[in-house]
Amino acid sequence: MRMVDLIAKKRDGHALSKEEIEFMIKAYTSDEIPDYQMSAMAMALYFQDMTTAERVNLTMAMVESGDQIDLSDIEGIKVDKHSTGGVGDTTTLILAPLVAALDVPVAKMSGRGLGHTGGTIDKLESIEGFKVELDNKTFNQLVNKNKIAVIGQSGNLTPADKKLYALRDVTATVNSVPLIASSIMSKKIAAGADAIVLDVKTGSGAFMKELEGAKELAKAMVAIGNGAGRETIGVISDMSQPLGYAVGNALEVVEAIETLNGNGPADLTELCLTLGSHMVYLAKKANSIEDARARLEEAMRSGKAIEVFKTFIRAQGGDETIVDQPERLPRAGSITDVQAPCAGYIAEIIADEIGIAASMLGAGRMTKESEIDLAVGIILKKKVGDYVEAGEPIATLHSNQSDVAAVTSKVLAAYSITDQKPTVPPLIYQVITE
Amino acid sequence: MRMVDLIAKKRDGHALSKEEIEFMIKAYTSDEIPDYQMSAMAMALYFQDMTTAERVNLTMAMVESGDQIDLSDIEGIKVDKHSTGGVGDTTTLILAPLVAALDVPVAKMSGRGLGHTGGTIDKLESIEGFKVELDNKTFNQLVNKNKIAVIGQSGNLTPADKKLYALRDVTATVNSVPLIASSIMSKKIAAGADAIVLDVKTGSGAFMKELEGAKELAKAMVAIGNGAGRETIGVISDMSQPLGYAVGNALEVVEAIETLNGNGPADLTELCLTLGSHMVYLAKKANSIEDARARLEEAMRSGKAIEVFKTFIRAQGGDETIVDQPERLPRAGSITDVQAPCAGYIAEIIADEIGIAASMLGAGRMTKESEIDLAVGIILKKKVGDYVEAGEPIATLHSNQSDVAAVTSKVLAAYSITDQKPTVPPLIYQVITE
Repeated sequence: MRMVDLIAKKRDGHALSKEEIEFMIKAYTSDEIPDYQMSAMAMALYFQDMTTAERVNLTMAMVESGDQIDLSDIEGIKVDKHSTGGVGDTTTLILAPLVAALDVPVAKMSGRGLGHTGGTIDKLESIEGFKVELDNKTFNQLVNKNKIAVIGQSGNLTPADKKLYALRDVTATVNSVPLIASSIMSKKIAAGADAIVLDVKTGSGAFMKELEGAKELAKAMVAIGNGAGRETIGVISDMSQPLGYAVGNALEVVEAIETLNGNGPADLTELCLTLGSHMVYLAKKANSIEDARARLEEAMRSGKAIEVFKTFIRAQGGDETIVDQPERLPRAGSITDVQAPCAGYIAEIIADEIGIAASMLGAGRMTKESEIDLAVGIILKKKVGDYVEAGEPIATLHSNQSDVAAVTSKVLAAYSITDQKPTVPPLIYQVITE
Repeated sequence: MRMVDLIAKKRDGHALSKEEIEFMIKAYTSDEIPDYQMSAMAMALYFQDMTTAERVNLTMAMVESGDQIDLSDIEGIKVDKHSTGGVGDTTTLILAPLVAALDVPVAKMSGRGLGHTGGTIDKLESIEGFKVELDNKTFNQLVNKNKIAVIGQSGNLTPADKKLYALRDVTATVNSVPLIASSIMSKKIAAGADAIVLDVKTGSGAFMKELEGAKELAKAMVAIGNGAGRETIGVISDMSQPLGYAVGNALEVVEAIETLNGNGPADLTELCLTLGSHMVYLAKKANSIEDARARLEEAMRSGKAIEVFKTFIRAQGGDETIVDQPERLPRAGSITDVQAPCAGYIAEIIADEIGIAASMLGAGRMTKESEIDLAVGIILKKKVGDYVEAGEPIATLHSNQSDVAAVTSKVLAAYSITDQKPTVPPLIYQVITE
């Protein structure tokens, strides 16, 4: 088999066979196929797409390119959740203890990641003493005992995807639905998920700016998951403005605590209940989505959810007193208001711009080596549809730097204020099941 | 400027600016842009094509990537000819002395090339003593004196094209009209041509199997040439069967001598007169194509053309007596007939298959290092439309190997014989001037 023939086949619009895809991914991972052939293939795929069968085969070939996490020692159906990214997305921190409170086993492998704020691991590390390096046996035992444990990414998972993603990034082939979908799904499957709930974002702060693109991506991933024998559903949710109010690491932990206590922002709470009820249902811990949702609401009300969060923190060496005393989390040196330049309704908050503002404060890392300041970030005070008086704070900056003028400008530029009360976009657009 | 942005721009169907194309080619030639980005760009170009302005800019950027031959010391308009390749294509060997006989300066740089038979340089080297290594001064003096000299490729011409072509070959991006057209035209322009006559082949033995593809390629090259200030015309000619009768190096020299004497195969003679009359006209040595053609026919009849050929051979150190005694050229050890398996009309001779048969005898080189046997090859005895009796020779193999059974089978497989008299395809399909 020659890679040049496979490129020509795809270029001409034909489907690649399972054997051809396996050959390609195996040989690429072992450096037998050079980058210059794989990038030509990626561009051919960009134009010629893949059938569902090809997408499943590509995903499984990438899963098999490296280690696979074995969660078979953990009782129950392991349901994983994946968000396609956004600004102020605290859902994992909330969902993990929330569904664990309903006996859904949460064996979560999470990353630090690059972006405007840190990943789930960074957020958890803002809790003093919290350890994310666990050996597999301890990890499995904790999940069996407490129904929840979170571990940092370890092992050599989906090396083919890592290599291909780095190549796509420099060859303008990131934005291809079959490649995005198989990249995400291969990581979830390699991490041992039995079932998967996808949170596909749409809007200005999302990878997929348009609803149609988000739907296409969600359908592609759901088809791959189901085709690979992992029951998968996709929720399309709004990311035209940041989710919740907090954007930052320790700040998002505080918001997660509030939400688990039932006092969180309406949009964040609603999204967590929607995603969570699908997770509980897929884990067969409820008879219907509605039943699952009612029980999740009850777990918030009764204090069960927050108790699980405390147990989880304690089990991984963290200081659980931060749950009742969030002021013990890292705190920024100064808090500065960003004031509304005029009165009116908030018509738009460009999520990406708020994310960039947070990263200017030091909340995110731009390269693998950069240090995150876990204390800093932004708290939005107004969201789309809210009315604001001139001079009233629309956001506060939690900062450890003396000059925040540039960040203030950035936040102001992200907000649009109008006379007319705007239409607030829906939070949940659609649930994709096939 | 970042290559990844240029790839995205082309991927999305936008035209690249002159500056962007120049940056890309310059940085690729100097290894600042890696192969994996250029191959993604090549695949994007395959799908999104280029405007005429982009094609001209790409061609000139490749011309400027290396040395350019300066022919300004040579008097007159230097008209170059290029054929897109085929089987038994002896035209250069005939055209060079033929148009030189009408005072058109022929300053030809030619290659050895890979393929079924050798290049023009290999064919000339079948003449004892013939030297293709000349210094520039001698080369220019010879052209000024005799109107003809042929030199082997030297210098670092169009290194960007060489590098890009090698990459396209392994990434399934050869077959892209803008890339093929700019590759050919950059080489002609770098070699110093003032005007260019293109012989674009179509049919089973050609790169472009279909007439429409050949027309598209011819139009693309003519537009580039004219856009770059080099008057260019394209002749679309048939390559559904080999041109002339001879396929091999010394064998084609003999056929060239016969043609220059006015005794050549009808198709080869006609094609040379057509291409030649356009060359003479572009060189402003005739008032019309018809006038040019009449004078070329006269040069064949009068012996002027063959005299120029002798002068040319002598001037480059070759043994000119081969012209009157072609038996002095390298001769194969044995000649074997290939006999018609049945009676009927020749309906088809798959040119590529005859070419492969010739290369099996040793007439061509498959890698840069392989040795050519200049004596061997195939003489066709029957062409499309001819009637043949069962057992009559349809071709003869000139060989230096004992077992020619496989070659005989290959030649037989190339021929189709039918009861019905077939339609003979036209030799010249069209002349493209814009």
